[in-house]
Amino acid sequence: MGALHEGHLELVRRARERCPAVVASIFINPLQFAPDEDLATYPRDLEHDREKLAAAGIDVLFEPDASTMYPANFSTFVEVEPLGAVFEGAHRPEHFRGVTTVIVKLLNIVRPDALFLGQKDAQQAVLLRKMIADLDFLVEVEVVPTVREPNGLARSSRNRYLDSTRRAEAVTLYQALCVTQRALEGGARKADALATGAATLSPSAQLDYLEMVDGQTFEPIEELRPPAFVIAAARFGRTRLIDNLWVPLRQAQDRLKNGG
Amino acid sequence: MGALHEGHLELVRRARERCPAVVASIFINPLQFAPDEDLATYPRDLEHDREKLAAAGIDVLFEPDASTMYPANFSTFVEVEPLGAVFEGAHRPEHFRGVTTVIVKLLNIVRPDALFLGQKDAQQAVLLRKMIADLDFLVEVEVVPTVREPNGLARSSRNRYLDSTRRAEAVTLYQALCVTQRALEGGARKADALATGAATLSPSAQLDYLEMVDGQTFEPIEELRPPAFVIAAARFGRTRLIDNLWVPLRQAQDRLKNGG
Repeated sequence: MGALHEGHLELVRRARERCPAVVASIFINPLQFAPDEDLATYPRDLEHDREKLAAAGIDVLFEPDASTMYPANFSTFVEVEPLGAVFEGAHRPEHFRGVTTVIVKLLNIVRPDALFLGQKDAQQAVLLRKMIADLDFLVEVEVVPTVREPNGLARSSRNRYLDSTRRAEAVTLYQALCVTQRALEGGARKADALATGAATLSPSAQLDYLEMVDGQTFEPIEELRPPAFVIAAARFGRTRLIDNLWVPLRQAQDRLKNGG
Repeated sequence: MGALHEGHLELVRRARERCPAVVASIFINPLQFAPDEDLATYPRDLEHDREKLAAAGIDVLFEPDASTMYPANFSTFVEVEPLGAVFEGAHRPEHFRGVTTVIVKLLNIVRPDALFLGQKDAQQAVLLRKMIADLDFLVEVEVVPTVREPNGLARSSRNRYLDSTRRAEAVTLYQALCVTQRALEGGARKADALATGAATLSPSAQLDYLEMVDGQTFEPIEELRPPAFVIAAARFGRTRLIDNLWVPLRQAQDRLKNGG
C-alpha cells in the first residue's frame, strides 16, 4: 500500500535472498477501507517509494490504478470465514474481504512462486495462508519478522500520523505486549498476564483488544499452547495501531530460523 | 459432476479441437448442494464416465474426493454479487457460491489455458466469466452450445430421474422456450411472449421462472436487446430442469461462429 518503511524493505530483502526476480506492488486498495476509514488520507509517497524499491533492487514494480483493478461493475469477493470477522475483522467489517480479494487478483496477475508478508499484520498473514491453502494457489508464503524502531515501536505507515507525544505513547503498545509475553512465559494465568499487560499501556490510549491466540488459527486460547501470539490493537489519538509477539519467544526464534 | 452425457462429451470434443491437451474433472461438489437437495442421490456412474472420457480422448482425468477438496476446516468462499443471488441463485441460495469456489480451486490445480462450459447452464457460464474477469484468472472461457435429444430436450444428468411420462412432459420446457423465442423475434411484447410460452408448458409441470435476460449480465430486460436469453426452470414431478435459448436466433448463430 505504499508509504514504504523498513518493514516493507525487509520483505524485498528476504525475497531477493530467495528468488531470482522480485515484484513489488503499490496499490492503496479501496476495497479494504470502510467509508469512514482513512482511504483519502492514507499516507501516499509514491516518489520516495519508487526510489526505495529501486534501491532495494526489485525487478518489477506493479502500480495499477483503482479503476483498472475494480471496473465499475466489479462484483466478485473472496472471504475467509470466520477468521475474517474477529479482531481486526470485527473492528473493520469488510476489511479482510478487501484484502483477500485483492490478493487473489495480485496472485493471478503476477503469478509469483512466493509471497512475502509482514508479521506485524499477523491476522492478515494467517488469513492469507488459509485462503491460499483453501483455494489451492500454488504459492509459498513467507512471513517476515516485524521491523521495529529502536524503542520497539513496530514500523507502520500509520506511524506518520503520530506527533511526538503520541509517538511516545505508542511505544507502550509494544511494551504492553512484552509484559504480557513475559508474564505468560513465566507461567502467569492468562487473565493476570493480560491485565498486567493492559496496565502498561499509556493511560491516554484506548485499548481495542489484547488477547492470546493460536498461532495457526488465530482463535483465542486460554492456556499457553505454542505456537501462540499475543496480539493488541489500540488507539493513540485518532491513530489506530496493531502489533503482536510470539509466545513463547524461543518458539518464535525457532520458527524464524526455519523460515516461518 | 459425472453422469456424463453428450453435452459433456461435446465439451471434450471442442477442447480437443482447440487445445493440445485436455483435462476433465469429475467431482460431485458438495458445496453447491443445499442440505435438502439431491447430493446423496445425484446420479453417479463413474465406470461409464471413465470409459466415455477415454473414448473421447482426454489426456488427464482429475477425480478428487470431497475430503481432499474440502478438509474439515475449509472456510474460504468466492462469491459473485448480485448475479449469484437471482434465478438459480434465488432458488438455490448457496449454490453458486459452491460453484465459483470449486472452479477457483480447479483453475488453480489444473491451470488450464481454456475452460469449456455448457450453454445449458447459462447463468453459471455468465457468472464464471464474470468471476474469471473480476479475479484476473488467465483463462479463456468457451461456452459450448447445448446438446439436445432429438425431441429438443436439453441433455442433463438429471434427465435420468425422469420416467417416460415425465420425459414427455419435460420436452415442453424446450417448447415453451421456442414459443417465447419466436414470439419475441416476431415483435411480441415481452409479457405476451412469456405468457404464450408459459401456456405451452405441460399443465402437470410447475414453472419456477420464464424470463428474458441480458446475455452478458443476466439481468431481466423489458425490451429485446441482443444479446439476450430466454431462460426457464420448471419441475416435472420431483425433477427440476433448466434450459435457455438465445434471442434472436440469428445473433446466437453469429456468436457461436465467433466462439463467443
